[in-house]
Amino acid sequence: MKAKVSNIKINDWLKTETFRIADRLIEINDMEVSDHHISGFGMKNKVYDLLTYLKGALYPYIYENNDTDIQFLEAAINKKVTDSAMLLNYILMQVYFSVCAEERKHTEDCTHCAEKADKITMEFIDHLPALREVLSTDVAAAVRGDPAALSYEDVIISYPCVEAITIYRLAHELFIRDVPLIPRIMTEYAHSQTGIDIHPGAKIGKYFFIDHGTGVVIGETCTIGNNVKLYQGVTLGARSFDMDENGELLRTKRHPDIEDNVIIYAGATILGGDTCVGHDSIIGGNVWLTKSVHPYSKVYNSTPQPTVKAEDY
Amino acid sequence: MKAKVSNIKINDWLKTETFRIADRLIEINDMEVSDHHISGFGMKNKVYDLLTYLKGALYPYIYENNDTDIQFLEAAINKKVTDSAMLLNYILMQVYFSVCAEERKHTEDCTHCAEKADKITMEFIDHLPALREVLSTDVAAAVRGDPAALSYEDVIISYPCVEAITIYRLAHELFIRDVPLIPRIMTEYAHSQTGIDIHPGAKIGKYFFIDHGTGVVIGETCTIGNNVKLYQGVTLGARSFDMDENGELLRTKRHPDIEDNVIIYAGATILGGDTCVGHDSIIGGNVWLTKSVHPYSKVYNSTPQPTVKAEDY
Amino acid sequence: MKAKVSNIKINDWLKTETFRIADRLIEINDMEVSDHHISGFGMKNKVYDLLTYLKGALYPYIYENNDTDIQFLEAAINKKVTDSAMLLNYILMQVYFSVCAEERKHTEDCTHCAEKADKITMEFIDHLPALREVLSTDVAAAVRGDPAALSYEDVIISYPCVEAITIYRLAHELFIRDVPLIPRIMTEYAHSQTGIDIHPGAKIGKYFFIDHGTGVVIGETCTIGNNVKLYQGVTLGARSFDMDENGELLRTKRHPDIEDNVIIYAGATILGGDTCVGHDSIIGGNVWLTKSVHPYSKVYNSTPQPTVKAEDY
Repeated sequence: MKAKVSNIKINDWLKTETFRIADRLIEINDMEVSDHHISGFGMKNKVYDLLTYLKGALYPYIYENNDTDIQFLEAAINKKVTDSAMLLNYILMQVYFSVCAEERKHTEDCTHCAEKADKITMEFIDHLPALREVLSTDVAAAVRGDPAALSYEDVIISYPCVEAITIYRLAHELFIRDVPLIPRIMTEYAHSQTGIDIHPGAKIGKYFFIDHGTGVVIGETCTIGNNVKLYQGVTLGARSFDMDENGELLRTKRHPDIEDNVIIYAGATILGGDTCVGHDSIIGGNVWLTKSVHPYSKVYNSTPQPTVKAEDY
Repeated sequence: MKAKVSNIKINDWLKTETFRIADRLIEINDMEVSDHHISGFGMKNKVYDLLTYLKGALYPYIYENNDTDIQFLEAAINKKVTDSAMLLNYILMQVYFSVCAEERKHTEDCTHCAEKADKITMEFIDHLPALREVLSTDVAAAVRGDPAALSYEDVIISYPCVEAITIYRLAHELFIRDVPLIPRIMTEYAHSQTGIDIHPGAKIGKYFFIDHGTGVVIGETCTIGNNVKLYQGVTLGARSFDMDENGELLRTKRHPDIEDNVIIYAGATILGGDTCVGHDSIIGGNVWLTKSVHPYSKVYNSTPQPTVKAEDY
Repeated sequence: MKAKVSNIKINDWLKTETFRIADRLIEINDMEVSDHHISGFGMKNKVYDLLTYLKGALYPYIYENNDTDIQFLEAAINKKVTDSAMLLNYILMQVYFSVCAEERKHTEDCTHCAEKADKITMEFIDHLPALREVLSTDVAAAVRGDPAALSYEDVIISYPCVEAITIYRLAHELFIRDVPLIPRIMTEYAHSQTGIDIHPGAKIGKYFFIDHGTGVVIGETCTIGNNVKLYQGVTLGARSFDMDENGELLRTKRHPDIEDNVIIYAGATILGGDTCVGHDSIIGGNVWLTKSVHPYSKVYNSTPQPTVKAEDY
């Protein structure tokens, strides 16, 4: 299936035209991202690499690829922790140098940028064990909450909620330290892998479980207590009428609060920054809720009896 | 954890049986794809590679991986444009040679096939800057439409709608030139990455934004105007009763038309080839719509008040 | 954009702190997965590699990457079958040695483990052609069931249901042989790629088609007959009230039965282990069904007429 036909014509065209096309593409991009230039070259892939190192450090038995004897495990995980720190530091430097350079205050030896990157790196890496302990409660919640879950190992190695919640918790640590751009790249990576879209700004307690997960959306200003369980397709979103005079959503507290011990079944939609689901409540499948409910509430749609017509029977 | 047990038995079995199994697998495949043989060897991965080159050319700051100085950017993007052209040309040759060979008209020097591949390649590559300008309007719509969007850069580097719409717009250029197979491989790649399923045949205007996106389905014969905003889980699909006598859907105009400046909230389902949503309309969450609505309509479900029962309170 | 600033401080910190952090991470993991230790090192990635080999063997024209002449195809597929067998055997050994070691009965020459792994490997590989024949019926159902499907080749190369159903059918063969952990890793890989979540325990007949697919959930104890067609967002799940005294779902038959020739439209939710959808039934979009329906039923929501308000018109 080799093309033996001479195609001199297209070769000529390429020689004369591709530079023009490339120049125009760069021009359009330059106009567009003039507001920021943080991403530099390949930032997205560097953040993906960072997530690979971090997951390797957090879950050694799952992601360590070598058939090394278990006695080298400490060295292997130490390397992953160190790699994570070095790459995060590099990424943060690039971010702060870019922002700083744009504000025209930056010199190549800008110690302010470097110190900021160092401080956040050390805080973040130092926090990994505490973060892993919280993740351990999430795994426990999955084992407890899904009869198909056979063991901790089963959940960690295959459940999409572990991927999504792990990456959300990592991203949240950078978000609360005001790191631009990077947290959202992280959570959108998880969204792509799992169909679970958790904004890095959301605040989520311990023992958090999402079953199946595809289509779950958790907005930026959402707060979720401890021991909350969500099913696939649950939206914790913004009401459409929290808009300014141009019809744009306002960047205020616009997503709901979910208190402790709440279960929300598949496809339920809970909207609004002043909507609070009281603790120990159950929200049924496909419920559309835009007002607060008391603790211990059970909220169900009066299921419309679908019309059943049995033909030829 | 090395297996030291001798397993001669399975080795013997493999030696005698695998060729039989391989032959039977090839036989089944040959029966099945006798209708076409375009895919050749590894077509799917080649199309994925092509998308990587194209995204690199369209968004240099996001996908260029080298820490090259900015002065080499033009050369780098020129290379991506050229690589895109060469690989697209190769793929198109393979497609047209296959179709041609099947119709028994093809010889190894079939200039008709080569000319067709060259023509489409040049048109497609030449159109990239214009396509990028349209994508720029989509990014602008996201920045404007989502309060959590912080900058153009933030949107381009992390929003799934940018991935999905970029790949849809590329695939659509091949679809309208009647290229078989390739456009759908492209959009299904995007579907896999984002949960957003846009058929390459759909016609979509400028300033198009999809928030969150998981579960969105946009059918083949759909048309969408300018400045339209969709949320997650929106279906623009076919009515189930547009079927022939065998219960199969008819391949006619079967998906709706959405005019300019329409907002469609999460989970809404709009069906049918003669359904038109007039310009400047708002369709509420979970609405099920199978009839046209006038311009400036606001369509909301009379939200069923869910039954709330607060126990022990 | 190279960081020239000295950052001795963070280097010192890394030297003294990373081993402490690594040790603590290992400690937390050891506590957590003490119930099982099957995953060993890199099991997840090995299972992904196995799926790559298997897909290559099942669909030679799609996944074979070399531009080899067609006369070497038999050798190439034979190699994929052999690679699949060898890697599956390795994975099964690791699984059974781990379980066996935990139960303190294992020695390095445990022939019982090796024989079990060999037996399952041979049965599984031997079954591939029969499994591929069933997959051929699934592809035929897609070609027949979707007017946008142009050919067998089009469906095999780009439809997400082919990916999801192929991997489910492979995983199911290991599930029914009581292989722990591995089947779920497989189906969750497919879930991640397609948004279609089929538990490996479900029993699914021939000519099975899922259109679009994002958000589909098919539970562990579900049975599905022949010639069934699902659309995106369909849940075949457990009723929330099949719970024990602690509010946890019971691990019994808890998912519905779907008989032959049933069509279930987008977003329908069918729940409960004693719910049966009789053959030749149609379940409409967004229907919520928790009771059995007779054969030949047509179940539709009395579509709530949404409130339409046309302003300025």
